[in-house]
Amino acid sequence: MSEPIEFHFDFSSPYSYLASERIDALAAKYGRKVRWLPVLLGPAFLKTGQKPLLSIPIKGEYARRDIARSARYYGVTFAFPKTFPLPTQAAARAYYFLHDRDCPKARAFAHAVFRAYWVQGRDISDANLVCGIAASSGIGAAEIAEAIASPALKDRLRAETDGAIERGMFGAPWFLVDGEPFWGADRLPQIEKWLATGGF
Amino acid sequence: MSEPIEFHFDFSSPYSYLASERIDALAAKYGRKVRWLPVLLGPAFLKTGQKPLLSIPIKGEYARRDIARSARYYGVTFAFPKTFPLPTQAAARAYYFLHDRDCPKARAFAHAVFRAYWVQGRDISDANLVCGIAASSGIGAAEIAEAIASPALKDRLRAETDGAIERGMFGAPWFLVDGEPFWGADRLPQIEKWLATGGF
Repeated sequence: MSEPIEFHFDFSSPYSYLASERIDALAAKYGRKVRWLPVLLGPAFLKTGQKPLLSIPIKGEYARRDIARSARYYGVTFAFPKTFPLPTQAAARAYYFLHDRDCPKARAFAHAVFRAYWVQGRDISDANLVCGIAASSGIGAAEIAEAIASPALKDRLRAETDGAIERGMFGAPWFLVDGEPFWGADRLPQIEKWLATGGF
Repeated sequence: MSEPIEFHFDFSSPYSYLASERIDALAAKYGRKVRWLPVLLGPAFLKTGQKPLLSIPIKGEYARRDIARSARYYGVTFAFPKTFPLPTQAAARAYYFLHDRDCPKARAFAHAVFRAYWVQGRDISDANLVCGIAASSGIGAAEIAEAIASPALKDRLRAETDGAIERGMFGAPWFLVDGEPFWGADRLPQIEKWLATGGF
């Protein structure tokens, strides 16, 4: 059995959202699983000296257009939120908390957070909102709220982010397939060819 | 008859080279022509405050790997040149000189320059080399050498570059299809869908 595909993402990354709606089905087509790993893009940008895409003159305006067009291209429901970007610590920590207990519930939670932001435009930086979404998994919102404020989950998110940067992550979505790195929702076709051919 | 697709490129841009090997056939499939427009990326990077891709820490290393892999993905012969990037003024000016006289010869010249650099690793910043390639079109190398040092062709290249930046170009390859901008060789599938459907 091959190792799962690693899918690193930030909940406030639009191209991560687009990829999140497609990667599981793509992997399943080739009998592969996906390990979802929320990270924070801020530290990766600091390390590489990059500015957030949408803040770059001219390129940022194009990106906004490209994101909406790419959503139509992939057939993914999408609406640009009014507030962008947002801090995603609460959502990412809640993901790891749930994942350690129940992987499918964590996956459902991640989809729900992505859609809350990228379809409904809700404020996913709000820990109450995040805990409410997580609570639909059957774990009490109060327990989740306490957990995501704990040093353990703060450290966990920091370690996942730093580890990904050390292995070469500089943006998101960032995939590792059999050790091969792929950056961007627009590399899904190359990932598919990789899975179909065993590497090229 | 629809307007031609505009294909802006810098001869020293690897993703431009990849696109140059595919865009004409893609357009022809939908009865469309392509207007090739060599430009200089330097001024576009200055305008947007970007650094050359390969000079960015971590991201640059990934890009080098992605370029070679993308060449394999598209089935395009490719070898990373030892000297990168190179100034491309001579090649771009020679292109416009030839284009004003004979469009197909200019197209053949552009392919030859791209391949001289991205397959054979030759120094396309060298005006003598460029004039030699251009001379195979039947125009004397001395005439071309004089022309590309003239103010008229310098102004032409500057105008094409500035005009593209004004219309939104920040990187290359940069395409305009029915007024819609597409950036990157990886947007060829979206361009194809656009041509097939009349926009989406």
